[in-house]
Amino acid sequence: MAKRSSKTASKHGRALKPRTQATAGDDTVITALHLPSEKPSPEMAAYFAKCEEKLGFVPNVLKAYAFEMTKLSAFVAMYNDLMLAPSGLSKLEREMIAVAVSAHNRCYYCLVAHGAAVRRLSGDPALGELMVMNYRAARLSRRERAMLDFAVKLSAEPWRVEEEDREELRRAGFTDRDIWDIAAVAGFFNMSNRVASATDMRPNSVYHGQAR
Amino acid sequence: MAKRSSKTASKHGRALKPRTQATAGDDTVITALHLPSEKPSPEMAAYFAKCEEKLGFVPNVLKAYAFEMTKLSAFVAMYNDLMLAPSGLSKLEREMIAVAVSAHNRCYYCLVAHGAAVRRLSGDPALGELMVMNYRAARLSRRERAMLDFAVKLSAEPWRVEEEDREELRRAGFTDRDIWDIAAVAGFFNMSNRVASATDMRPNSVYHGQAR
Amino acid sequence: MAKRSSKTASKHGRALKPRTQATAGDDTVITALHLPSEKPSPEMAAYFAKCEEKLGFVPNVLKAYAFEMTKLSAFVAMYNDLMLAPSGLSKLEREMIAVAVSAHNRCYYCLVAHGAAVRRLSGDPALGELMVMNYRAARLSRRERAMLDFAVKLSAEPWRVEEEDREELRRAGFTDRDIWDIAAVAGFFNMSNRVASATDMRPNSVYHGQAR
Amino acid sequence: MAKRSSKTASKHGRALKPRTQATAGDDTVITALHLPSEKPSPEMAAYFAKCEEKLGFVPNVLKAYAFEMTKLSAFVAMYNDLMLAPSGLSKLEREMIAVAVSAHNRCYYCLVAHGAAVRRLSGDPALGELMVMNYRAARLSRRERAMLDFAVKLSAEPWRVEEEDREELRRAGFTDRDIWDIAAVAGFFNMSNRVASATDMRPNSVYHGQAR
Amino acid sequence: MAKRSSKTASKHGRALKPRTQATAGDDTVITALHLPSEKPSPEMAAYFAKCEEKLGFVPNVLKAYAFEMTKLSAFVAMYNDLMLAPSGLSKLEREMIAVAVSAHNRCYYCLVAHGAAVRRLSGDPALGELMVMNYRAARLSRRERAMLDFAVKLSAEPWRVEEEDREELRRAGFTDRDIWDIAAVAGFFNMSNRVASATDMRPNSVYHGQAR
Amino acid sequence: MAKRSSKTASKHGRALKPRTQATAGDDTVITALHLPSEKPSPEMAAYFAKCEEKLGFVPNVLKAYAFEMTKLSAFVAMYNDLMLAPSGLSKLEREMIAVAVSAHNRCYYCLVAHGAAVRRLSGDPALGELMVMNYRAARLSRRERAMLDFAVKLSAEPWRVEEEDREELRRAGFTDRDIWDIAAVAGFFNMSNRVASATDMRPNSVYHGQAR
Repeated sequence: MAKRSSKTASKHGRALKPRTQATAGDDTVITALHLPSEKPSPEMAAYFAKCEEKLGFVPNVLKAYAFEMTKLSAFVAMYNDLMLAPSGLSKLEREMIAVAVSAHNRCYYCLVAHGAAVRRLSGDPALGELMVMNYRAARLSRRERAMLDFAVKLSAEPWRVEEEDREELRRAGFTDRDIWDIAAVAGFFNMSNRVASATDMRPNSVYHGQAR
Repeated sequence: MAKRSSKTASKHGRALKPRTQATAGDDTVITALHLPSEKPSPEMAAYFAKCEEKLGFVPNVLKAYAFEMTKLSAFVAMYNDLMLAPSGLSKLEREMIAVAVSAHNRCYYCLVAHGAAVRRLSGDPALGELMVMNYRAARLSRRERAMLDFAVKLSAEPWRVEEEDREELRRAGFTDRDIWDIAAVAGFFNMSNRVASATDMRPNSVYHGQAR
Repeated sequence: MAKRSSKTASKHGRALKPRTQATAGDDTVITALHLPSEKPSPEMAAYFAKCEEKLGFVPNVLKAYAFEMTKLSAFVAMYNDLMLAPSGLSKLEREMIAVAVSAHNRCYYCLVAHGAAVRRLSGDPALGELMVMNYRAARLSRRERAMLDFAVKLSAEPWRVEEEDREELRRAGFTDRDIWDIAAVAGFFNMSNRVASATDMRPNSVYHGQAR
Repeated sequence: MAKRSSKTASKHGRALKPRTQATAGDDTVITALHLPSEKPSPEMAAYFAKCEEKLGFVPNVLKAYAFEMTKLSAFVAMYNDLMLAPSGLSKLEREMIAVAVSAHNRCYYCLVAHGAAVRRLSGDPALGELMVMNYRAARLSRRERAMLDFAVKLSAEPWRVEEEDREELRRAGFTDRDIWDIAAVAGFFNMSNRVASATDMRPNSVYHGQAR
Repeated sequence: MAKRSSKTASKHGRALKPRTQATAGDDTVITALHLPSEKPSPEMAAYFAKCEEKLGFVPNVLKAYAFEMTKLSAFVAMYNDLMLAPSGLSKLEREMIAVAVSAHNRCYYCLVAHGAAVRRLSGDPALGELMVMNYRAARLSRRERAMLDFAVKLSAEPWRVEEEDREELRRAGFTDRDIWDIAAVAGFFNMSNRVASATDMRPNSVYHGQAR
Repeated sequence: MAKRSSKTASKHGRALKPRTQATAGDDTVITALHLPSEKPSPEMAAYFAKCEEKLGFVPNVLKAYAFEMTKLSAFVAMYNDLMLAPSGLSKLEREMIAVAVSAHNRCYYCLVAHGAAVRRLSGDPALGELMVMNYRAARLSRRERAMLDFAVKLSAEPWRVEEEDREELRRAGFTDRDIWDIAAVAGFFNMSNRVASATDMRPNSVYHGQAR
C-alpha cells in the first residue's frame, strides 16, 4: 500500500503524509467518556466469558455499559430478548431492521456491528452493504420491504405513523405481535444509535472483516 | 358544554354534531395491537400492586408490555434504573429530558405521562407545558438549557453530535457520567416514543389533570 | 414542594438549587422588545375594557401591539373577523386549527392562549392537549382531520398545496368559502406564531390553569 | 417563436404541440375557489378606484378578498400599515423582506407582485431577481443581510429564534421598533404566502414585465 | 430612481445610503476563486468566437472553466450533448428541467442563465418566472408536469426514486431513452448548481433583460 | 447457509423461504432502462479493453452510458479529468469526497464502486466503511475533515455555501484551485448519484469484496 501511495504522491506533485488509520484506537478507547469499569457481577462476568467463547471477543457496547452493572444487565436483558428470543421475525430480519434504522441515523458503531451480523446470518455479504447504503436498492421480498419501510418511517417521522402503516404490515403478512417486534427492534436501535453517537462509541475492529 | 355548542351552532348557521371525546377509550383500549396479557409473574404482579398503591393506577405502558413478562421486566428494569436510580441528574432533570425529547418526536403517550411528572416534580405546572411546547421558551438555568440542547440535537441529528457538544456539557458543569445519563435518558425516550407511536399507545386519562 | 425537592436532592447526593419559575415575569415583561405603549385610542380603550370584563384580563398579545394604535386595531380587526365572525367553521374548529398550526411552529404564546380556548370551547381538556402534542393522535371526525391535515400541510410546505388538497376538503364536506376560512386561519397563525417567536412574546399566566 | 419550435420539433423527430401559456387565465380566474364578489363598500370602492388610478389596475389579491368587505378592509388596513406607513425600514427594505420570505415559501403570487415592487423601488431589476432566487447571492449591505437572515430564519424555524438573533439585528443598527417591523412584515408574508398557495391565487399578468 | 429613493427616505425619517447594485461586478469578477485563464486551445478559442457571434457574449460559466482547457472542453462536450443534441425532449423541455432543478437548489447563476433560455425558447416570459418560483403553479401539460416532478424529486431525495417513479413517466408517454435524458439533465444541473454555488459564480448581466 | 437458516426457522416456529440474493442480476441487468448498447467507437472500444486489462472488468456505469458513444465519451472525459488528472487533491482524497457525497445521497452504485476505491487507495478498509457510514466518526486530519465538511454541505444545502465556507478551506491549507477541485468532484457525484438512482444502476458485484 505504501508503494501505491508514494506513486500517487509523485504523480500529483505533493508529498502525502502517511495516513494514520481512520479507526485508530477503536479497540482500546471505546467511548469519549472516561467511565472506569465496575467490578463485573458474577452474572455479567459469565456473560462476558460466553461472548469470548462464542464470538472470540466482548462487543465494545458491553464494555461501554460496564461502568455500572445495573445498567449493563438491563441493556443485556433487553437486547437479548429483542434480538435473540423467539419471534415471528427471523434473527436476520431483526438484524436487517437494526441496520436500516442505524443507516437512517448514520450510526458508526451499530452499522459496523450489525452490518456484520446481517452478512453472517444471510450468507450474502452484499445484503449487509445494502442495508447500510440504501435498503430501497436491495432486491427484497414484499415482506422484507414492508418491514423496513415501517421501521425507517418510524425512525424518521414517528409522529406520522398511523393505522394505515400498521395495515400495510398486516397486508404483507405480519401479525400484531410481529408489528410489536418490528416497532420494538426499530425503537431499540433508535435508542442505541443515540447512546453510541452521544459517546462516540467505537466498534471492535474485528467486525470490519467478518463474513465478507 | 352542550349548551355552549348549540349556541355556537346557531350563530354559524350549521348544526354541530356533538363531539365524542378526543381521548375516548384511552383507558380501555391501550394500543392498536391485539395482544392479550400474559399471566403476570409474581415479580411483575407485585410491581403492578405497588403502582396501584403509590400512583393509584398502573401506567398503560406497563399494561402494553404485559403480553410477555420477559419484555415487561426488561422494560421496567431499564426504566427504573434510568429514571429513578441515583444520578448526577435530578429526577426532575431526567423528566425534563423525557418531555423535551418526546416533544421533538411529538409522542402523545410520553408527553402526557411525563409532562405530568415534570409538573409534579417541579411544582411548576407551566414548566411541564413549556417542555411540551418549546423548551427554548422556558426560563432555564444554563445547566438545564445545555442539557436539553444536547438531548434534542441527539434526537434530531444524532450523526452530528461530536466532541464539541460534549465539551459544551462539560463547560455547563456536567461530568462524563452525567453526559452518559443525559444520553441514556434521551436515547430511552427516542425508543419509547417510537414504540408508543408505532402502536398508538394511549395514556391513562388521569394524567391529564395531575398537578395542574 | 420545597420538601419534595430536598428529599430528591438527598437521594441523588447533590444539592438542588430551588428552581425559579420557568415562566417568571410572563405577566410583566411581555416581549423582549422595549416598546412603550401608546395612549390607547378611545376604541381600543373600550376594547381593553371589554376584555377585562369578559375575560378578566387583557391578553398579552394586545398589550404587545399597543405601542401603536394603528397596528393594534388592524390586528384586532383581522383577528376578530377570522376567529369570531360567522363562518362555516365553528369557533372550536377555528381554535383547533390555531393550535395545530402553532404546534407545527412550536409557538409558546399561541399554544398557551389557544390551547386554553380549545379546552374551554370543547369542554374536553384533553382535546386541547392533543392539539398541542400531535393532532394525529386525537379521535377526530373525518371533517376535523381533513381540516387539520390541510392546515398543517399548508404550514409545513405551502408550495406543495394544490387542487388535490382542496378536493380532499371538498370531499370531507367543506365549501369553497370554508376552504378560504381554513386557509385564512392557518395563515393568520403562521403570522402570529412568527411575531410571537421573533419577540419572545409571553402569555398571561392565567391561561395555564383555564378549563383543565 | 412558432418557427423556432417547429424547427426544434423536426430535429427531434417528434411533433411539439404548441404550448398554451403557463399563466393562461391569470387575469380572469384569480383563485381556485368560487367566491362571488360582494358589492364593494364605499370605502373599498374608493380604494379600488385609487388603485386603478395609481397602478392602472386592481391587484388580484384585493379582488380575491372582495367576496366579503370585512375581510378585504382588515387585509388592506394591515397591509397598508405594514408596507406603506412610516417605519425605520424603508419601503424597499420591507419589499425585500416580502420577497425573501416568499422565496422561502415558493409563493408564485407574492414573488411576482413583490418582485416587481423591489425592481421598481430599487431601480435595480436584478435585485428583484436575486430576492426571488437566493438573497444570499446578492451584494447587500450588512444591514440588509442581517434583516433578511432574521426574516428567513423566522420563516423556516420560528421556534429557534431567540435573543441572540435579536442581538444580531441590534448590532447591525436596528432598533427594537425596527425589529418589530421586520418580524411583522416577515410574519405577514408567511400569512399571505399561505392564503395564496391554499387558493392558487394568480398575480395580474402586468407585473411580469414591470420595471425590467 | 435616485429621486424616488430620496423621497422615500424623507418620509421614513432616515437617510438612505444609495444602494450599490446587487449585481455589481458580475461581468468582471466571475467567481470568488482566483484562477487565471489558460491560453485557449484552438478548439475552445473557436467555440468562444462562435458564442460571441451567436449570443453576443461568452457565458461566464465558460470563462470560469477556462483556467484549464481539459476541464473546459469536458464541460462543453457534456453540456452540448445534453442540452442541444437530438433527444425525445425538446430543447425547451430540457431548459425547463434545468430551471426547476436550479430553483430547488436556489442557484443564482443557473436560474439567471437558464431562466432566460426558457423565456426565449418558449416565447412565454412568465413561463421562465414560474420555473424559477414554483413550477407547480404553472399551467403545464401532464407530460411537462410528470417530467418536472421526477426531476425535482430526484434532486431533493434521490434515494427515494424507484420503479414507480419511472412508471409514472412511462404513463405520461416518455420512453426509456427519454427517462435517461430527464435524469441526465437533472443530474447535470445538480452538478452545475453546486460548482456555481461553491465558487459564487456570477451570470452575465445581459441575461437579466433577455426575452422579457 | 441453508443449514443456519433452517435452524433459525425451527427456533422461531415458522418456515423461512430461502432468500434470493439482494444483488441478484447486478452483473447482467445494469439499469432499469432498456437501452441497447451502440456499437463502441474505436476510442471507447480501446477504453473498455484497457478497463478489462487493468481492472479485470468494465465498470457497469460505462456499460450504462454505452447506448450512445457521445454520452459515454463525454462522461469518461469528465470523470478521468476529475478523478485521475494531476490535482492538489490526492486520488484518495477525491475518492473520499466521492463516497461522503454518495453517502449523503444514499447512492448504492457509487457507494459500492467508490467505497472499494477508498479501501484500495488507502490500504485502510475501515476508512472505506467510515466514508459510507458517517465521515464525522472517522479519525481524520483537519485538512480531510474540512474538505468533507465543505463537500457535504455543498451537497445538502448548496444555497448556503458562502465565502466563510471557502475561507475555512483556505485556513485548512487549500488553494483556490483545490477549492475548485473539491467543488467539482462533489458536484460530479451529485450528478452521478442522481443518474444512478434515477436508473437503478447496479454496481459490478466484484467491488463488494475488493480490498477488504
